[in-house]
Amino acid sequence: MAAYTQILEDLNDGILTLTLNRPDRLNAWTPVMQAELETAIRAAGDNADVRCIIVTGAGRGFCAGADMNHLQDIQGDTDAGAKSATARVERSAPEGLEKIYDGRFGYLYACPKPIIAAINGPCAGIGLIFALFADMRFAAEDAKFTTAFAQRGLIAEHGIGWLLPRLVGEANALDLLFTARVFKGDEAADLGLVNKALPSNELMPHVMELAGHLSKMVSPRSVAVMKRQVRASYFQSYSESLAEADTAMADSFTTFDFKEGVASFVERREPAFQGK
Amino acid sequence: MAAYTQILEDLNDGILTLTLNRPDRLNAWTPVMQAELETAIRAAGDNADVRCIIVTGAGRGFCAGADMNHLQDIQGDTDAGAKSATARVERSAPEGLEKIYDGRFGYLYACPKPIIAAINGPCAGIGLIFALFADMRFAAEDAKFTTAFAQRGLIAEHGIGWLLPRLVGEANALDLLFTARVFKGDEAADLGLVNKALPSNELMPHVMELAGHLSKMVSPRSVAVMKRQVRASYFQSYSESLAEADTAMADSFTTFDFKEGVASFVERREPAFQGK
Amino acid sequence: MAAYTQILEDLNDGILTLTLNRPDRLNAWTPVMQAELETAIRAAGDNADVRCIIVTGAGRGFCAGADMNHLQDIQGDTDAGAKSATARVERSAPEGLEKIYDGRFGYLYACPKPIIAAINGPCAGIGLIFALFADMRFAAEDAKFTTAFAQRGLIAEHGIGWLLPRLVGEANALDLLFTARVFKGDEAADLGLVNKALPSNELMPHVMELAGHLSKMVSPRSVAVMKRQVRASYFQSYSESLAEADTAMADSFTTFDFKEGVASFVERREPAFQGK
Repeated sequence: MAAYTQILEDLNDGILTLTLNRPDRLNAWTPVMQAELETAIRAAGDNADVRCIIVTGAGRGFCAGADMNHLQDIQGDTDAGAKSATARVERSAPEGLEKIYDGRFGYLYACPKPIIAAINGPCAGIGLIFALFADMRFAAEDAKFTTAFAQRGLIAEHGIGWLLPRLVGEANALDLLFTARVFKGDEAADLGLVNKALPSNELMPHVMELAGHLSKMVSPRSVAVMKRQVRASYFQSYSESLAEADTAMADSFTTFDFKEGVASFVERREPAFQGK
Repeated sequence: MAAYTQILEDLNDGILTLTLNRPDRLNAWTPVMQAELETAIRAAGDNADVRCIIVTGAGRGFCAGADMNHLQDIQGDTDAGAKSATARVERSAPEGLEKIYDGRFGYLYACPKPIIAAINGPCAGIGLIFALFADMRFAAEDAKFTTAFAQRGLIAEHGIGWLLPRLVGEANALDLLFTARVFKGDEAADLGLVNKALPSNELMPHVMELAGHLSKMVSPRSVAVMKRQVRASYFQSYSESLAEADTAMADSFTTFDFKEGVASFVERREPAFQGK
Repeated sequence: MAAYTQILEDLNDGILTLTLNRPDRLNAWTPVMQAELETAIRAAGDNADVRCIIVTGAGRGFCAGADMNHLQDIQGDTDAGAKSATARVERSAPEGLEKIYDGRFGYLYACPKPIIAAINGPCAGIGLIFALFADMRFAAEDAKFTTAFAQRGLIAEHGIGWLLPRLVGEANALDLLFTARVFKGDEAADLGLVNKALPSNELMPHVMELAGHLSKMVSPRSVAVMKRQVRASYFQSYSESLAEADTAMADSFTTFDFKEGVASFVERREPAFQGK
């Protein structure tokens, strides 16, 4: 694996765990961390041994947002602003979903593997935006969340103004954006911002069990197609979405995974999907 | 009424109850059942005696999904896939909402009567998709649900990839699609997948009371216009939706039902709407 | 301030409270009330002393809907229908968000200040629609709500057919529109129709505390930009929304409020934002 300096990487039994690793700074976001996450997740997308990706934080935080030193440095620097907006890992022209979801976090949507955020502690600003681009989110009940922007004189960055109303409804989105108030994991679950909140010591066991299920019990091919279907659907008419689904359905009837899915069900045994 | 072999039909006091009727197979979906449902619901849409439609299942299930015999038959058969995607009751060119919502279930949206699914037991795969095209859903607390597709190597079929995020939010939709896990009626209510979950013996009384209210206390004309307004709104700008609403509002001021609605309110009596 | 006859206006410490003031009629909606609200909210949008707007009702109601005398007058009068649909305060050609959200209530979205509805009692028909155009809603637990339209032979007026599914999900929207049933504040909170329901005597203290927070602790510039971002997002591709966000982010780096937001955080003191 690549040598990273601000994240940890662990691959075990199909589950890739990426850990933001600046625990003395509550894993505050930096350009290096951003580049390492993008590199690791793009590589995992291409790695057939990876069935599911978990992202979590080292120590007592998930990600406290942009490093405050960085925010102090860029005051009044419009050039820094422009650079911040466009900072990316160098890569070839975007394809597929990344043509729709360009910008800093489109690679998470484009990744054909399920991505789960395990939010173990403070989750703020750009750390929250990153988590919102995961496919599912689970949080410790007492993990603290805040959008942060309005209390710093900033705006709804990196597409969170587009994304948040679609996740928690408009009235909650405006509440969280306008007030920048701190709320905890259990309220995040009530709002629909995370799928579920759990006591701190149950968070990783719950997420690992889910990741294990996703790695063994469902077809990786099915998951990859579904992820693309849902994320494309927002920019499709119903007819366009249905036409793609009908083509994909007919294709799936010819696959090994369909045969295996029906056979394992009829034979009442665990499936052995191959993703093809 | 038409002679059906896989559904039952009962019309009483304005309420049409359609019952999926293959109880020995948990009402597993077949092409015959599909055609009979479409025929019955289209006819109900044109029948002035029908004010509200309920769909439920005979015996202990609602609909267990595609009949497994059928899935085994079509393995590797791309032609079967194509036929499955396009199988429809023969009819004239689609009009109105069916031009937007084409495909297998558009007729449910196009029907001008309210359609309520009373989910009494297992609801899986295509049975779940069918239920999602109803206008409202109520479930027994212990009814088991599953999307099923990812555990069979299949994909998000018949537009569920477009529909589900709009009903339960993206994070829940991805959870239910990716994991294909079994969940029960009470969780379905928490997720917003059904309007309400009730103890098994209270399900039909609750749905019948609602259907009675819809049959007597509200204008059928109002309901038909509103159903079209909401389902059209996803493909309209706010201005387009508003322009249609303003025209429809002005039209409504000239109707019998408006006069009756105001008069019955002022006179503190039950209304006698005529749908015109 | 302007002399109003059907609303009260109070500006205190950055918080403008507008009170619908026909308590003997449960603040039933009239053309005069509508014009006064629009005039007051447009003026507040331009008034730098106003940081937050609260709308509530005098006496025991919020707004009982259209005055029934008015509904009786317009029966069969298509011309009244047309006038009702187009009645507006005279003004210059719409700009910005009002080009997207035209019609009776677009000015609420176009207003750059946060607008909070404090729903103290009955909230019906056009009173409910007005409240839905606020940015956040709080209700007394026992406040009664109803869409009302279907029980009067009317339709989903003034864009509520477009708006409601986006706030409470489609199945709940159809329930509330089709049945026109009465529901209370606590259910409104469960449905996501209001941000939170509170005991009657805690409603205004809660809303005043939130308004105080919005007036002092967050940048008015941030809030204005965010409000525009979210309301524009429904008609933007992700890329369009992101491009606007990136420009707005770079702009924000040069502002007083960004400098003050970072400084007050680092110095652990309350911010003194200027909105620039």
